[in-house]
Amino acid sequence: MSRRPGKLRLGLSLQHAGYHAAAWRLPEVPRHANLDWQYYLRSAQAAERGKFDMIFFADGVAVRENLDDREVLARTPSVVNLEPLTLLSALATHTRHIGLVGTASTTYNEPYHIARKFASLDHISGGRAAWNLVTSWSLGEARNFGRDTPLDYDSRYARAREFARVVHGLWNSWEDDAFVEDKQSGLFFDPDKLHVLGHQGEHFSVQGPLNLSRTPQGRPLICQAGKSPAGQEIAAESADFVFTADHSIEDGQAYYREVKGRLAQHGRHPGQLLILPGVVPIVGRSEQEAQDKFGRLQELIDPKIGLSLLALLGDLSAYPLDGPLPPIHDYGEMASVARLIEQRARKDNLSIRQLYQAIAASRGHRTLVGSAEQVADDLQAWFEAEAADGFNIAAPYLPGAVDDFVDLVIPELQRRELFRREYEGTTLRQNLGLDYPEHPRSTPTHADH
Amino acid sequence: MSRRPGKLRLGLSLQHAGYHAAAWRLPEVPRHANLDWQYYLRSAQAAERGKFDMIFFADGVAVRENLDDREVLARTPSVVNLEPLTLLSALATHTRHIGLVGTASTTYNEPYHIARKFASLDHISGGRAAWNLVTSWSLGEARNFGRDTPLDYDSRYARAREFARVVHGLWNSWEDDAFVEDKQSGLFFDPDKLHVLGHQGEHFSVQGPLNLSRTPQGRPLICQAGKSPAGQEIAAESADFVFTADHSIEDGQAYYREVKGRLAQHGRHPGQLLILPGVVPIVGRSEQEAQDKFGRLQELIDPKIGLSLLALLGDLSAYPLDGPLPPIHDYGEMASVARLIEQRARKDNLSIRQLYQAIAASRGHRTLVGSAEQVADDLQAWFEAEAADGFNIAAPYLPGAVDDFVDLVIPELQRRELFRREYEGTTLRQNLGLDYPEHPRSTPTHADH
Repeated sequence: MSRRPGKLRLGLSLQHAGYHAAAWRLPEVPRHANLDWQYYLRSAQAAERGKFDMIFFADGVAVRENLDDREVLARTPSVVNLEPLTLLSALATHTRHIGLVGTASTTYNEPYHIARKFASLDHISGGRAAWNLVTSWSLGEARNFGRDTPLDYDSRYARAREFARVVHGLWNSWEDDAFVEDKQSGLFFDPDKLHVLGHQGEHFSVQGPLNLSRTPQGRPLICQAGKSPAGQEIAAESADFVFTADHSIEDGQAYYREVKGRLAQHGRHPGQLLILPGVVPIVGRSEQEAQDKFGRLQELIDPKIGLSLLALLGDLSAYPLDGPLPPIHDYGEMASVARLIEQRARKDNLSIRQLYQAIAASRGHRTLVGSAEQVADDLQAWFEAEAADGFNIAAPYLPGAVDDFVDLVIPELQRRELFRREYEGTTLRQNLGLDYPEHPRSTPTHADH
Repeated sequence: MSRRPGKLRLGLSLQHAGYHAAAWRLPEVPRHANLDWQYYLRSAQAAERGKFDMIFFADGVAVRENLDDREVLARTPSVVNLEPLTLLSALATHTRHIGLVGTASTTYNEPYHIARKFASLDHISGGRAAWNLVTSWSLGEARNFGRDTPLDYDSRYARAREFARVVHGLWNSWEDDAFVEDKQSGLFFDPDKLHVLGHQGEHFSVQGPLNLSRTPQGRPLICQAGKSPAGQEIAAESADFVFTADHSIEDGQAYYREVKGRLAQHGRHPGQLLILPGVVPIVGRSEQEAQDKFGRLQELIDPKIGLSLLALLGDLSAYPLDGPLPPIHDYGEMASVARLIEQRARKDNLSIRQLYQAIAASRGHRTLVGSAEQVADDLQAWFEAEAADGFNIAAPYLPGAVDDFVDLVIPELQRRELFRREYEGTTLRQNLGLDYPEHPRSTPTHADH
């Protein structure tokens, strides 16, 4: 494998009626769309038609918005969602190539459950499962799992790091060819190829083995999305790709270098961790058509929702909507995201209204509004500047924005030889150009990968 | 609804290559069948063709067999299995009528996760999800979740009972018609129809709400399989049906009366909890054909596996295989099951070998070997004697034994007017003849069910 993939990698982020906060209000989005697996299937199949590497579902284990502010809450479509593992499993059997990335938290969960469910999805999908490893920072989540307050940052990440190690260990409970299933002799598996984990750590004691075979990808892939130093460390140690957010090529390059630079100390090379910044594309046959599509969405943003999207910066309701962002004194638990949002306002001199409109469209990612050529130019520039190995495309509304990207931008990227015309392999790992992980204890005479 | 269903209810238990311990050794079973969702789909579709009410997957969160006895372990096909929620979600989208019953333990899990995943499956399947509520008794499971020993019986069941209450509460986080999704006004849901649980109990503190709407069945159904008094109490309080095991009509009647008798104190009537004993049918076009099929399976049982199936009775390896079962002094944690196994040996004067052959075929359930008429006679007798509302059919091998039951026994039951010819409704709840659960806090003017 080359140390840097020759073509860019593309994930597609699907959620609610789309990534844009007002997407559900578009007339073409059916009511209750976010409870309908077939609504997401249309986008998944469009992504597969466009040769995307993977689809991705974000998730939390709570209504994370403020329950006491019912007026805002009642205007928030993200309060209910299908659970990613069950949804991805349904989508797996109606797609053939697309990778399936689901979010699950390490904070209020157990490694055995996560190892098992993602391994099961990897078997069901024939090697297309990936786990987006997150920690749970919200008060709402804490209160659903017996706590009055969230775990602090250090505790969350210490737990997450050990959690990932245990999951890795469980996924290696069996060697690839352990299951001989010899009907004649009655031997179901070769007992020398079973490895009992016996993990005893600070946060977890997990004996193993996992009651599921090693998976088609060797193990499911792991994605990490935290930008903080501890998040980067988990990514460098355990992840195969990261979803990130940067607003300038320079920031993207700096992050790219920093994360890739952490790999060597874990015995890994730069090609083993792909950096995929998020972008929210609104594409038209012309720039004007794209701007019109964007304007239609922006007009649908309720001001109450707008202010709630800036809640990471504190309560701004006392300030005029068309005035500037006041100084921020407390960045709270999600400081890295809050600082990104603030930077954005300062850089472009945005009013509070302009800031929340920008956030509603992209929620921390870059919004790209333009023609296919303009969007492709931007992606190409980031890719060639080594600010990205590819992108996580957050579709602003479903399935229309997915179709637009597939019909307009993908052919342009293909013309530029930046993106595949056919899938290279049958697993997500193969399509991403990542090496198959040999079992750490496999005996050379039997290893045949 | 009548207080007793007029027709019997049928579940189909699917696991490994079949319920019989040697099923995987049959020449027609493909290797790695138990990792192939399409292998199970063939049985699910056959069950649907036969108008079964539901399919069921048992599960545990460990390799529960003795890890130190590698010789037995290596001959045990149940060591690896797909995880039920992901598997059922895949099957849901390729079936239209069949109910989907998955097992999940209350012992090493959190109510929020279970409420969410089964609610998600209920949405994905259009109202066909059911949760088989179990507790985890095994050492293997304890050791995968940070414990040196299993939780004791009382603690497991106290936790399970509160767990079920919390899950019920979370499923009622939203009224049926809470999500107005008014695009014009921007109101996504009616805030008066959100109910925050705020549970504070001995084992759990769970704020809620669930981040998923009320489901097509009002809530997923609940199954309970414990025969012990605490298990019966959970069933009487929370379950919609029970999977049980009795070996004579008289025992079945006694159990039936006992469990149904517990319902009134929870404000429920006898028709609200269905009793479904397990049976393992081996059906032929004649009794002889059935016996031949049975013999072919029994011959494939490895003696090492045979003795391991009797492990609940202690270590029997020092006793002659063709001699009688020695006296049992310690019935261990699963005493109710162990006693059933022992009773069986004593009643029919079985040798150890005969006992393990009988157990391998049925594992605690009754094996019915015979023609369609003979099998139907037995089921009819139990049903009419009020020893059962229906049956959980454990298919001894897949998919052949499912096809046999569907092609031979189902038409015979239909001829006798004991079983449906068409599905009555679109949800599992409707097919089972169970009432829709009105939301406990719904306002009458809006309740439209």
